Amino acid sequence: MSQTRAYAAHAPDQPLAPYRFERRQPRPDDVAIEILYCGVCHSDLHFARDDWGMSRYPVVPGHEIVGRVIAVGDQVTRFQAGDLVGVGCMVDSCRHCQPCLDGVEQFCLEGFTMTYGSDDRQDGTFTQGGYSDNIVVSEHFVLSMPDGIDLASAAPILCAGITTYSPLKHYGVKTGHKVGVIGMGGLGHMGVKLAKALGAEVTVFTRSEAKVAEAKGHGADHVVVSTDASQMEAVAETFDFMLDTVPVQHDINPYLAALKYDGTHILVGLLDPIEPALNAFNLVFKRRVLAGSLIGGIQETQELLEFCAEHNIRCDIEMLNIENINEAYERMEKGDVRYRFVIDMATLKSAEQER
Amino acid sequence: MSQTRAYAAHAPDQPLAPYRFERRQPRPDDVAIEILYCGVCHSDLHFARDDWGMSRYPVVPGHEIVGRVIAVGDQVTRFQAGDLVGVGCMVDSCRHCQPCLDGVEQFCLEGFTMTYGSDDRQDGTFTQGGYSDNIVVSEHFVLSMPDGIDLASAAPILCAGITTYSPLKHYGVKTGHKVGVIGMGGLGHMGVKLAKALGAEVTVFTRSEAKVAEAKGHGADHVVVSTDASQMEAVAETFDFMLDTVPVQHDINPYLAALKYDGTHILVGLLDPIEPALNAFNLVFKRRVLAGSLIGGIQETQELLEFCAEHNIRCDIEMLNIENINEAYERMEKGDVRYRFVIDMATLKSAEQER
Repeated sequence: MSQTRAYAAHAPDQPLAPYRFERRQPRPDDVAIEILYCGVCHSDLHFARDDWGMSRYPVVPGHEIVGRVIAVGDQVTRFQAGDLVGVGCMVDSCRHCQPCLDGVEQFCLEGFTMTYGSDDRQDGTFTQGGYSDNIVVSEHFVLSMPDGIDLASAAPILCAGITTYSPLKHYGVKTGHKVGVIGMGGLGHMGVKLAKALGAEVTVFTRSEAKVAEAKGHGADHVVVSTDASQMEAVAETFDFMLDTVPVQHDINPYLAALKYDGTHILVGLLDPIEPALNAFNLVFKRRVLAGSLIGGIQETQELLEFCAEHNIRCDIEMLNIENINEAYERMEKGDVRYRFVIDMATLKSAEQER
Repeated sequence: MSQTRAYAAHAPDQPLAPYRFERRQPRPDDVAIEILYCGVCHSDLHFARDDWGMSRYPVVPGHEIVGRVIAVGDQVTRFQAGDLVGVGCMVDSCRHCQPCLDGVEQFCLEGFTMTYGSDDRQDGTFTQGGYSDNIVVSEHFVLSMPDGIDLASAAPILCAGITTYSPLKHYGVKTGHKVGVIGMGGLGHMGVKLAKALGAEVTVFTRSEAKVAEAKGHGADHVVVSTDASQMEAVAETFDFMLDTVPVQHDINPYLAALKYDGTHILVGLLDPIEPALNAFNLVFKRRVLAGSLIGGIQETQELLEFCAEHNIRCDIEMLNIENINEAYERMEKGDVRYRFVIDMATLKSAEQER
């Protein structure tokens, strides 16, 4: 295989820049994929800037990958050249622990191999993500794109979509349930669409009056402006679930108060200490639950792709030329994207030719 | 009915002292009970001292009541004079909301009527608890004492017991599960016995090396000294459930780390803000759950009494003369009780006669 063209972060404080490296030769169970589109996730930005203190450089971000199969290893049975496929946040796991056997590879006891920023389990090479023109991934971690799905807008389903779908399924959200979605970004707007498609009555909680119409445009039945105490009071003890997509510290207590007894507040965006402090009283007195959830397993991600195709659910995206990735990061930091940038990877070739 | 003899708190800063008042005449659905034993719960102390800012005076504490039926109203069908019965934390609820219909009266949408410190739903009189020689309670909230159960040690089952049993049942704890019990007081030692009887492998977490033998005496399979980092490290990601009975602020994060993926940490003792802050990362990355639980419903409490009789599970108690209640409160504050004081209510009569 020829050199892979990519954009990489070379240091925490430098803009992403063109980068070339070698992908591994496909192993017997590998699928080689020409990348057509790659979504831009907030994690990419955190990783590029070493916000989590675990980055190594250069690193090619991107784990919302859609492409076309260009070659397969001898043992690959489910894919052939020309197939439209996806790759999400995981490219490998131990495959023998109980979570792996249960299809929740994200909880692999040995830790899953991240699409970028991990060491490959077999040859130890550093994994590099989807801001590139091709990727080589073991068949088990390759998703099949359903017929008719819009490829570019499907890319974020592989992270933003599955992150919100998995807990809704895990907790059995269905018709008759009242679901609150907190935050209206890449995760939140997908959460609204998915909870609606699962039959729930959906309320968006937003701090911004300006997002009320936007939320309803995504299918929300109701919108509560969370900074308005009277609106919050009016919904006390009425929700079965809260899907909390907010990635920064916020007071969870008012949302707990909006849950019925036995209600569940699901964190999918926050990774920090919970401050202001969570009041145990709010859990104990109504047997409420605070839960976390992390992406979803491979089989569940495949199920979600089919579900999105069937229900015509798309992530709202803004197409991006890879040359503008650094500007895109700046806009993401300001919340200025509705709701996900997706890189048109054809622009990688033209970007290189112009140099 | 003649005047009820009792001990009451008359002000937050004064010791409990003898008190006389009138119980209501039994209504058609009421059961009048001569009180034989009453457990002493930490809540009694908090209420007597107005620690929760909701106390009114004088108040007669006590919600772990065991006694004998002395009279029943016309509509009472399940009890007759002479029956041995119990009364726990609740003496009424709305009886028509969904939680009440579901048998979880503790989550009554209108709020349950506490055994002491509430206003009676029908006549508005102030409810008074079990540090007294009799009580009048609607049939639905009266428990039947199974044949052969030890009456004095059964009293704390009505609060300490059901508080730990209810979440173990709600979350389906059974053979094959690994359960950690945090704290070895009135709740904790019952949690150990109940989790063992349900078939779980039980580990007690204690800060005190001195409690290791004691914990094993209650049937714990293992003991982890939680202040020993190497012992905590050794049990990382191994538990299905943590039953956290600690009533004061403590760091929950090390216990979350000891849960498997999908593990559940159940708070039954803490009612305060969770500080040090809970790290959302510990929930999200392993889909763990932090839950609260509050006593249990009437039907479930009856089930627990049968379960304890069948498995010969007793609360470890220290019998108390009511004249020593203030000294008992002081000892409870120092953690100096193994594990529950139970007042022998016969001492109320002799205490009065000596005056």
